[in-house]
Amino acid sequence: MINIVNTDITYPELNRNPRILLGPGPSMVHPRVTSAMTAPMIGHLDPCFLQLMDKTQELLRYVFQTKNRVTIPISGTGSAGMEASLANFIEDGTPVLVCTNGFFGNRLVEMAERYRADLSVLRCPWGKAFTLDEIAEELKRKPAKVVAIVHAETSTGVLQPLEGLADIVHDQGGILVVDAVTSLTGINIPVDELGIDVCYSGTQKCLGVPPGLAPFTVSERAIEVIRNRKTKVSSWYLDLSIINAYWGKDRSYHHTAPVSMNYALYEGLRMVWEEGLENRWARHVENARLFWDGLEEIGLKPFIPEAQRLTTLTTVKIPSGVNDLEIRNQLLKVYNIEIAGGIGDLKGEIWRIGLMGYSSRKENLLLLLAAFKKLLNR
Amino acid sequence: MINIVNTDITYPELNRNPRILLGPGPSMVHPRVTSAMTAPMIGHLDPCFLQLMDKTQELLRYVFQTKNRVTIPISGTGSAGMEASLANFIEDGTPVLVCTNGFFGNRLVEMAERYRADLSVLRCPWGKAFTLDEIAEELKRKPAKVVAIVHAETSTGVLQPLEGLADIVHDQGGILVVDAVTSLTGINIPVDELGIDVCYSGTQKCLGVPPGLAPFTVSERAIEVIRNRKTKVSSWYLDLSIINAYWGKDRSYHHTAPVSMNYALYEGLRMVWEEGLENRWARHVENARLFWDGLEEIGLKPFIPEAQRLTTLTTVKIPSGVNDLEIRNQLLKVYNIEIAGGIGDLKGEIWRIGLMGYSSRKENLLLLLAAFKKLLNR
Repeated sequence: MINIVNTDITYPELNRNPRILLGPGPSMVHPRVTSAMTAPMIGHLDPCFLQLMDKTQELLRYVFQTKNRVTIPISGTGSAGMEASLANFIEDGTPVLVCTNGFFGNRLVEMAERYRADLSVLRCPWGKAFTLDEIAEELKRKPAKVVAIVHAETSTGVLQPLEGLADIVHDQGGILVVDAVTSLTGINIPVDELGIDVCYSGTQKCLGVPPGLAPFTVSERAIEVIRNRKTKVSSWYLDLSIINAYWGKDRSYHHTAPVSMNYALYEGLRMVWEEGLENRWARHVENARLFWDGLEEIGLKPFIPEAQRLTTLTTVKIPSGVNDLEIRNQLLKVYNIEIAGGIGDLKGEIWRIGLMGYSSRKENLLLLLAAFKKLLNR
Repeated sequence: MINIVNTDITYPELNRNPRILLGPGPSMVHPRVTSAMTAPMIGHLDPCFLQLMDKTQELLRYVFQTKNRVTIPISGTGSAGMEASLANFIEDGTPVLVCTNGFFGNRLVEMAERYRADLSVLRCPWGKAFTLDEIAEELKRKPAKVVAIVHAETSTGVLQPLEGLADIVHDQGGILVVDAVTSLTGINIPVDELGIDVCYSGTQKCLGVPPGLAPFTVSERAIEVIRNRKTKVSSWYLDLSIINAYWGKDRSYHHTAPVSMNYALYEGLRMVWEEGLENRWARHVENARLFWDGLEEIGLKPFIPEAQRLTTLTTVKIPSGVNDLEIRNQLLKVYNIEIAGGIGDLKGEIWRIGLMGYSSRKENLLLLLAAFKKLLNR
């Protein structure tokens, strides 16, 4: 046995008080997913783990609605997925267009710059979506080999329509990269049907899995871009050609997979599959609508008009005279509920309220509305 | 409640059969660490999580034996730590020396190339350690701003002595980067005393935590190198200056921390602290020696002479006429024990047997010896 020597409480046991997580993520995690992480550790080349990888890839293809062979979890959080979505397709001077209307669009800009793209940035105000025409016009002015855009902008609550965009991007010889961090399995995003070439997400939002992995899918068209690279990807850790040699049939060792996180992902994906994608989207719509009705009843106004509003993440205007931080602190301290404030351009202007994955439940939205009513004296 | 529609068993429950993990990692995970991952999900900016971050940093400083302010877990596996250890300190044309005597040294070479270093590579045969003189001579020939070396080479089982190396590196104006993936908490590596500037490890070896995080520490001298950079680090995800704004007092959001993995790390570190570092090293020595004695009894020969041999990972020569894969398959199928074969230059030549962290127990080594005896008819 292992001998225990230091026994004071400088380092106390983990706090296990639950929170009701209704911010922009992490969302709450179903007990089945939590329990999956307690499965015994096995090696990353164990036949059982290789089977788990195959099943996970099948389920990831199901949630991305894709036939893409290269459909894997990247061993990092959603931001690692974001970086992989650019790093693999940009060489020095590759013409790239990033369309940004929020904090995460801006992060795409920042990353593309670091990878030394010949970068164009198309901006529209935070809270608005782009029209196809705006993007088409910019690409006519300056064509791009990579066009990146956020499907569900977590900083504003705007849904970006994607229908028709891939055609425009492909016609001028580029690939379409889409951030689906706050939409995957919460809002319909049919990757193949939309012609998206690279799509990534995070586990901790609508999937209801702890943060730590980035579901990722790559079309054949985008694989071709990787094949034709003249230089290696500067990030070894995020180099898809060698990551895929592990996830593909070679099973060549790249890095030690985060085994427990992969257990959690598998169980989370299994729960999506059991519920069914269509039912899951419908649940997110239904609960969002109930929440919006409740907001109206207590006189709180969504920041985004209903037609462009995310069902997974609602942004709410902070009423004038109300202390943002005070209300959020009270929600956390008195009712154990986490929501988030605005970031970037919208700091102090909005609250960000997520009803995603296992957090998207009627008991949660009802409680939050009741707590708002109390704290705001509505 | 969430409605369950698809109920066939295309996607069965997770396999929960335990394995006895005696390879080069992942090691086995103590039930306390496994259980820590089941703590309820909380936000990455929750006051409780911020407290956990502080305590985790204290404990990481304890295991690295350092006062370094910037001592954090990188949100990726050990390889992400390796990449961060170079990416942050290399700009185009930075003179870098990598000393390599194995697979993981070669990976450092590969990464330094990708980050466009002006790279020198000092090689010695797999299975040998470098002498101080060899490195000093190479640095006299061509000075380097970054010198990287592996403390415990997982591909060969060699321990690299580090005493005096930092002085040589510092005297010619560089920083010393050390890979402690297979040594941290299993073998004494006093970061401050040795003058190491950047040191990284993985959670899944001697720490006995699932794979997924990379403990990482940076000296003030190395922080100064980051401060004096003229260009941004090309990897946004691994950029320490912005990662540290989250782990430092600003708490600026960088990426969503892998919360459950951080729970596991905290519990794993707490167990190291309870056992005491010195006792932990002694346990690894004691069990390694018992294992080596047992190997001798059945006529198996360690690949590395005792003076340079790792206590955490023993490499064993595969006796002539013995089928490597057959034996490893039998170990796994019949006795549920995982060990690993050689990689790179040593493929088919050796077995790699880890007695690390919670795997370093007498019942495990006794069982493995007994299984070898059976399978090899000794």
